[in-house]
Amino acid sequence: MTTNSFMTHLECSKCGVIHDADHLQQLCKECAAPLLVRYDLQAAASNLKKEDLLRRPANLWRYKELLPVRDEQNIVSFGEGMTPIFTAPRAGEKAGVPHLYIKDEGILPTGTFKARGAAVGVSKAKELGVQALAMPTNGNAGGAWALYSARAGIEAYIVMPQDAPTITRNETAISGAHLYLVNGVISDAGKIVGKAVPERGWFDASTLKEPYRIEGKKTMGYEIAEQFDWEVPDVILYPTGGGVGLIAIYKALKELQAMGWIGEKMPRLVSVQASGCAPIVKAWQEGKQESEFWKDSATVAFGVNVPKALGDFLVLEAVYNTDGCAIAIDDADTLRAQQILAELDGAFICPEGAALYAAVEQLKAQGWLSGEEKVLLLNTGAGLKYPNTVQVNPPLLQPGDELPHN
Amino acid sequence: MTTNSFMTHLECSKCGVIHDADHLQQLCKECAAPLLVRYDLQAAASNLKKEDLLRRPANLWRYKELLPVRDEQNIVSFGEGMTPIFTAPRAGEKAGVPHLYIKDEGILPTGTFKARGAAVGVSKAKELGVQALAMPTNGNAGGAWALYSARAGIEAYIVMPQDAPTITRNETAISGAHLYLVNGVISDAGKIVGKAVPERGWFDASTLKEPYRIEGKKTMGYEIAEQFDWEVPDVILYPTGGGVGLIAIYKALKELQAMGWIGEKMPRLVSVQASGCAPIVKAWQEGKQESEFWKDSATVAFGVNVPKALGDFLVLEAVYNTDGCAIAIDDADTLRAQQILAELDGAFICPEGAALYAAVEQLKAQGWLSGEEKVLLLNTGAGLKYPNTVQVNPPLLQPGDELPHN
Repeated sequence: MTTNSFMTHLECSKCGVIHDADHLQQLCKECAAPLLVRYDLQAAASNLKKEDLLRRPANLWRYKELLPVRDEQNIVSFGEGMTPIFTAPRAGEKAGVPHLYIKDEGILPTGTFKARGAAVGVSKAKELGVQALAMPTNGNAGGAWALYSARAGIEAYIVMPQDAPTITRNETAISGAHLYLVNGVISDAGKIVGKAVPERGWFDASTLKEPYRIEGKKTMGYEIAEQFDWEVPDVILYPTGGGVGLIAIYKALKELQAMGWIGEKMPRLVSVQASGCAPIVKAWQEGKQESEFWKDSATVAFGVNVPKALGDFLVLEAVYNTDGCAIAIDDADTLRAQQILAELDGAFICPEGAALYAAVEQLKAQGWLSGEEKVLLLNTGAGLKYPNTVQVNPPLLQPGDELPHN
Repeated sequence: MTTNSFMTHLECSKCGVIHDADHLQQLCKECAAPLLVRYDLQAAASNLKKEDLLRRPANLWRYKELLPVRDEQNIVSFGEGMTPIFTAPRAGEKAGVPHLYIKDEGILPTGTFKARGAAVGVSKAKELGVQALAMPTNGNAGGAWALYSARAGIEAYIVMPQDAPTITRNETAISGAHLYLVNGVISDAGKIVGKAVPERGWFDASTLKEPYRIEGKKTMGYEIAEQFDWEVPDVILYPTGGGVGLIAIYKALKELQAMGWIGEKMPRLVSVQASGCAPIVKAWQEGKQESEFWKDSATVAFGVNVPKALGDFLVLEAVYNTDGCAIAIDDADTLRAQQILAELDGAFICPEGAALYAAVEQLKAQGWLSGEEKVLLLNTGAGLKYPNTVQVNPPLLQPGDELPHN
């Protein structure tokens, strides 16, 4: 059965050249920049009403007309999406930003937002006949793509840094994917994949080297609009590694504007990086359109340890166009923020997500935030994927012991 | 604002004595058995229509009229519930049970079904003025109750076995809860809590020692009915430790029958335990109404390492009344099942959940399942909370290396 997708073509994000959307594509054949999926948004707006969504299941396929998969049979899904948004009232109050919200992407299969990209990316790969794919990853994307690939019957080759969270090795390996570690960072993994892919005829599923992962992540933007009743928040903070999440939210909101589903107002988009790996922050500070490779990068927020993102110019474009900003956070502040959110509001989120709260504190102190705004943090994953960020030494009792008095 | 809860009273599950639902209660004052929450289901059915649910957010509070919290202000929530149900077609085919479904309770805050009990239990504790609570746990409930308690501003005292999954220590500790380990099993933790509670005036949040946790878990049953379009599946398998999940699903389905929302048909309920801790299976095999303490219990499926459950008689009642059964699974089969589900259908689930698939294989081989049934596995948690159940030794590459050929 058809999804009634209104996809029309792929467009190069740099040179604008059009590519066929119904054949396998990687980067632009003219200029090697990422391709973006385009839709007939006027037709979509005439055929699909906001109200139609209400009766659909609470997952990202509720937006199927605005996704690239054409046949429902090709959808590879665990029911992912429509993650909850909750308030963080006490932490918000403490930071002087009382209208603080968290969208919790830990509530997805594999425990991170990477499931969205994998769901749509693997579905479309299946639709286009991919038999084997390969990718470098900081761990979470690898786990997600490995499991969705297993469900699709696609062979997956995953290369991740040796220091990536251990649990992501398990996810990757238990799916039957081919897993390799590299004694380096994600760029080193990327080079190994980049060399193997043309030789072996695999599909390259690296960040932005195929056009569909971003479409899955785009649904975060649709959901935010729908969950805020089509009145977008004032500010959205996003942890930026490869940057696809932020690019995708911006793309989604532009699409919704074109459809007339949201008004002119666009949230100010904030790109948050770690002080140990902040190429986009540096570029933004210098008013540049692209970033430079960040040497010797290191951070506890492992997912954002990306020294040079292929889509850096798209992240910067989204930040510039929305009057947003970019800010780097020290690991110590990230870990402190993780604890504040758990203690005050019960939210145990990943370090990448926690860094956003530290960013809110600093942006409020700088006056960039007035404190009146509705501020949304995109928590990209569950805290439980990062056991090493919490230090615990609980007392050990023997059976029959009495509970010590505090 | 009122939730319009139709709660009327609490009823003892053994002697039937009525207790006031709007004051703090623990066990029955007459016979020390668990109390169950009762509702005016006729009034609920006249006031609430199935169709009303369609426009409500996809979380467990959509059933608020059938939950014990009276004031919406007391709801402590991260948007938990309405977890997805997906198919496992390849694993189902392999087991000869092609209509195989998994409800994925890993897609909840804290990564397990324990979030449901904590959401409703903590909310009601807050409503009734609890300042501090205590509980023994095999880890996951402790993590969930600690985080929800932090959100509610309630002090939590958590005692768990030393061998409980490490990540659950982190969840508990980062919330600011008071965490203690015990060199023993959950029963030893329970004794320590049981002694401390009356002395220190804490609320005892142990399994079934307060009436509200089960109400949260009951929403699994409501969701199953709603997600199967009010036609329940033929068989539901549930991993049984304390047994509350299974008791709660049974309670939910009986309530829906009383409301006329589902028909006479009840799924056959299967209680699955580990061979190293199978008191309920033994009792069922012997046709008994209660279980005996299981000595020297041990299993990789740590959540079901419960040597004697307070609600054992309620689990057995649900199994007997639905023509269900009880079955014990060896750890080796559980781990094999975990791998099969990941490799064939991409589902990385917890060992407790994976044991259910091994149970399906065995029940099909025994002829208890014909293979025609719609069979639902309740996966109680995310595989990523159990890093030690997967053994991985991936090759380590150096930057610049070529990917090895397989």
